[in-house]
Amino acid sequence: MNTRPTPVDTLIEGIDRLLFPGVDGAPEVIENASVALLGGQIEEVGPARELAGLFHPTIRVDGRGKILTPGLVDSHTHLVFAGDRSGEFRMRCAGAGYEEIADDGGGIRASVRATREASEEELFELSLPRLERMVSSGSTTVEIKSGYGLDLETELRMLRVIRRLDEISPARIVSTFMGAHEIPDEYRADRDEYVRLICEEMIPRVAEEGLATFCDVFCEEGVFTPDETRKILETGSQHGLQPKVHADELAASGGSEVAAELRVVSADHLMEISSQGIEGLARSGVVATLLPGTTFYLAKKRYAPARKILDAGLEIALATDRNPGSCTVESLVFICGLACLQMGLTPLEALRAATIGGSKALGLADECGTIEKGKNADLVLWGVSHEDVLMSEFENQVPREIWIRGSSLDR
Amino acid sequence: MNTRPTPVDTLIEGIDRLLFPGVDGAPEVIENASVALLGGQIEEVGPARELAGLFHPTIRVDGRGKILTPGLVDSHTHLVFAGDRSGEFRMRCAGAGYEEIADDGGGIRASVRATREASEEELFELSLPRLERMVSSGSTTVEIKSGYGLDLETELRMLRVIRRLDEISPARIVSTFMGAHEIPDEYRADRDEYVRLICEEMIPRVAEEGLATFCDVFCEEGVFTPDETRKILETGSQHGLQPKVHADELAASGGSEVAAELRVVSADHLMEISSQGIEGLARSGVVATLLPGTTFYLAKKRYAPARKILDAGLEIALATDRNPGSCTVESLVFICGLACLQMGLTPLEALRAATIGGSKALGLADECGTIEKGKNADLVLWGVSHEDVLMSEFENQVPREIWIRGSSLDR
Repeated sequence: MNTRPTPVDTLIEGIDRLLFPGVDGAPEVIENASVALLGGQIEEVGPARELAGLFHPTIRVDGRGKILTPGLVDSHTHLVFAGDRSGEFRMRCAGAGYEEIADDGGGIRASVRATREASEEELFELSLPRLERMVSSGSTTVEIKSGYGLDLETELRMLRVIRRLDEISPARIVSTFMGAHEIPDEYRADRDEYVRLICEEMIPRVAEEGLATFCDVFCEEGVFTPDETRKILETGSQHGLQPKVHADELAASGGSEVAAELRVVSADHLMEISSQGIEGLARSGVVATLLPGTTFYLAKKRYAPARKILDAGLEIALATDRNPGSCTVESLVFICGLACLQMGLTPLEALRAATIGGSKALGLADECGTIEKGKNADLVLWGVSHEDVLMSEFENQVPREIWIRGSSLDR
Repeated sequence: MNTRPTPVDTLIEGIDRLLFPGVDGAPEVIENASVALLGGQIEEVGPARELAGLFHPTIRVDGRGKILTPGLVDSHTHLVFAGDRSGEFRMRCAGAGYEEIADDGGGIRASVRATREASEEELFELSLPRLERMVSSGSTTVEIKSGYGLDLETELRMLRVIRRLDEISPARIVSTFMGAHEIPDEYRADRDEYVRLICEEMIPRVAEEGLATFCDVFCEEGVFTPDETRKILETGSQHGLQPKVHADELAASGGSEVAAELRVVSADHLMEISSQGIEGLARSGVVATLLPGTTFYLAKKRYAPARKILDAGLEIALATDRNPGSCTVESLVFICGLACLQMGLTPLEALRAATIGGSKALGLADECGTIEKGKNADLVLWGVSHEDVLMSEFENQVPREIWIRGSSLDR
């Protein structure tokens, strides 16, 4: 049978190893693979010999000696902020604890003071280089949270900055409202009033302006209680904001239980999650988002129990948690390497968590996270021939080429 | 008084903070500084107002909003090797220990097998990209050791590759002979014969061909004993090779005592050094070279006791230890950040160890490591305005501009 080759935009041929051509049940790797891109989507993917001659590409890319992964999905960041907390870093080097610094007016509250003083333009100018570095390190989808405003006006300003970043960046940006990141100083004596403000003023306004997809709460002793978390997330859901939660970061304080009860999309951090907490998340189909960069950057010893979480059948996502104080790391490849070294993930498990896992944590598994026919052509070509090499040299990796919805960032 | 401006090649003006304009007694930082470069050297350095109008530069560089550091000096690497040990990385993620892997034929011996099989050309082609990435991350002086040959022919081949790297790279390369990196399999039953081979055949030949500046020995239980170490280093010294030693990495096994006795230039690793070991090094003026990347990459808990070593009055150097198995990290800025987080160094202490400390560990303090009149113009300009920011965001840093002996790598 002689058929004419189908015209496509790009054909990447002879890739040593193509990772994640499907989600569940599919093989994790195709060796000596090719992939055809058309109109921003994956047109076809498979063994090179099966695709040979089927396509007539405008651009032909040699994949030999390289691996191709889905574009990385960073599903948890706080990259919009003003101010500089490098002084806290110096204090921590000298032995001060993160909680001690927070009690002293540092931590999230220091970023809140600086962010409230910054204009929308200033915030945008400060945040764009951070996002650009993330994208150039391979992240093609990035979630960003508000939460350094803690008043209506500044929270909206942050969310507008996130919207502008989405407009200007080739990456897809996912926006999360997180007015419940901390109790602001002016409501320390009346936390109920701050919860009321979030539920009755912030959430309706954010939803009305279409500024966020998700609503997130820092559920932890000293921050928001499980009851407050439930109330805020339920209010968010009523306004169309899907729930996420910062859970069991500093102590097993009820966060994962609320997460399971509300069937949130993802429960994040989980450094101190209990076995029952894990079982609950498993029963509710919650994605466990792990942020080992934060444990690393705070020089803590105990990483989230990734192995136990995987063994319980949960999907895990790995994300950077990029923020001004507890993790400045922007590269998701570095985070994957850290997860291999410190959490006992295999290279494939870590990369799955940074692609498929991230897309599930953002409810985007139908659009990105795999290299599958019909999905967005978000791809990263790496200059190594095996994922074990990528991970064993994670500190030295720069993508060879990145495509977002079919467009190469280099061309 | 009106004098005509002196012509210089480059003038970097208005630098927010210029680090290390001298070694001891000098201030560590000059704020709002300028530096003039001429003929590959520092012509003048000082406060911008004092240098204003004195020089007529061919190239003028705006240092505002930035810091300038000496070029980083990576004084301990094993970057010339063949083969791929990513499989070991995967095994370690799954819980295997480094020693267990070594017993199983992995570790240094795996790299020896692969390196013996590689031609000089292959070794050069494999090593050059590693060195290039290091230089682009800010290292302007890089030490490289042999030690994956463990036979005369392959050791010489590695050292010739190191010489070729020096010839082709803008960076200064310092070469170390380390035939005593491990006992090769064929001499396991007759280690005395291998020590004899090193002393009577390898060292004389290496010295005769002028292939190395230093001689280094891995002094550790199961590798070379203190007596063997002494014999090898003394033989090296007799042939003009200055002594260095890998000491107290896995256990306090006499390495630092030999180091003190022989007054070696540097004792490296020191994760398990005792208090007496520290005192001995201090009395002998030995530089303590710390390699936190290895502790990190092997996911060990115990870092070298940097604070105790500093308090004892030793000069410390920080280096990457770049090698195929126990540390693949190539960025010395990353290593500095790790030293802040895990060893309690301040940002200035860490950066001093990666510049002044490194130059002392290589006996090059008269030529590089500071930004001082008459020294080599090896400089790195960073796009942040304070060293605390550089260190607190160490994972995201790429130099803005690098000069080696006065030549910018970008121009």
